[in-house]
Amino acid sequence: MARGRFITLEGGEGTGKSTLAAGLEAALTQRGISVRRTREPGGTPGAEEIRKLLVEGSAERWEPMSEALLLYAARHDHVERLIKPALDTGGWVISDRFFDSTTAYQGAAGGVDRKTLDHLRHITLGDFAPDLTLVLDLDPEFGLRRAGSRGGSEQRFESKGLGFHQRLRQGFLDIAVAEPERCARLDADAAPDDVLASALEIIGKRLGWPA
Amino acid sequence: MARGRFITLEGGEGTGKSTLAAGLEAALTQRGISVRRTREPGGTPGAEEIRKLLVEGSAERWEPMSEALLLYAARHDHVERLIKPALDTGGWVISDRFFDSTTAYQGAAGGVDRKTLDHLRHITLGDFAPDLTLVLDLDPEFGLRRAGSRGGSEQRFESKGLGFHQRLRQGFLDIAVAEPERCARLDADAAPDDVLASALEIIGKRLGWPA
Repeated sequence: MARGRFITLEGGEGTGKSTLAAGLEAALTQRGISVRRTREPGGTPGAEEIRKLLVEGSAERWEPMSEALLLYAARHDHVERLIKPALDTGGWVISDRFFDSTTAYQGAAGGVDRKTLDHLRHITLGDFAPDLTLVLDLDPEFGLRRAGSRGGSEQRFESKGLGFHQRLRQGFLDIAVAEPERCARLDADAAPDDVLASALEIIGKRLGWPA
Repeated sequence: MARGRFITLEGGEGTGKSTLAAGLEAALTQRGISVRRTREPGGTPGAEEIRKLLVEGSAERWEPMSEALLLYAARHDHVERLIKPALDTGGWVISDRFFDSTTAYQGAAGGVDRKTLDHLRHITLGDFAPDLTLVLDLDPEFGLRRAGSRGGSEQRFESKGLGFHQRLRQGFLDIAVAEPERCARLDADAAPDDVLASALEIIGKRLGWPA
């Protein structure tokens, strides 16, 4: 059986990642692909417990380097216990966030050295990486307004201020430019159906559809 | 003001680390030293929350590499927010466990590659290390019996079986042999007062007492 494909959705707050993930899950399932939709931080019972430590509470609860270590602890559990086993049985995995979020949030926006984060990623995951990463790009003033209207207790990163979210956007754009073979930028200001259509076109072109 | 000294106590379950920590705190305080007693995993509010994820639940709850990342996340918080600030104001810090526990539990006993753990330590802490590490050595059959009689919910590592704890003991002994300038082995089978007396003698010889 062919190994499945691993697609990650990246971008700041309120860029429409979960809407796109749901749309992709439906469209891929219609094509007969077995899809496992997941998210980070989280995805497995242990990683979801780590998520609570990260996304709730005050903005200053953790330093960015402590966050990066917590995120990679959650990611290790997620990759070993959910993502790799799903891919090995031929399923496709769509994850709302993956390691680029750590590079952008804790690195570009949070100030942790890029080399340190790359080291941490290599220690934890070796060469494991997504087959395709869709970067949803949006002015953070719009994104934060959208995200804020969701409410709930997971507001820790939203509360970090506009400067943080502007560095974050740039961080994601820099990743998309630096790794054009793995990444594609999508205009998240477009209508959700158009974002989904663009995403499906990119997936078909880059990964191909199973026969 | 002179920087304080950082002393760590290491060893398996039931080797008497907390008893020795309490004895050292009292003896050092009597000598006019300002002492901050702490422990790992934990020591700060954030790190204590990570502790709960690590020491409760079933033995298979986490893979050793996920544990190592959680431990270094907790350790980063502990070092930056408690240990370094205390040392900087001239206090001495005594910690019940520190990075050697990760090397022994997740490495020697858990099977994570030593080089990976050393990398993780360097990424997280740079060259920061204890001034003195006292390794309490005891046959794990005795230690586990002692630890088991404490009861409580923090039994996750105790539940890992005798083979694990035998590799753990050897892991700590190997560290003491490999780093004789930083580490000293203490016979934890001795009476608590004798263990404390030996520890104080070593501290006096190696670190010296403040005038």
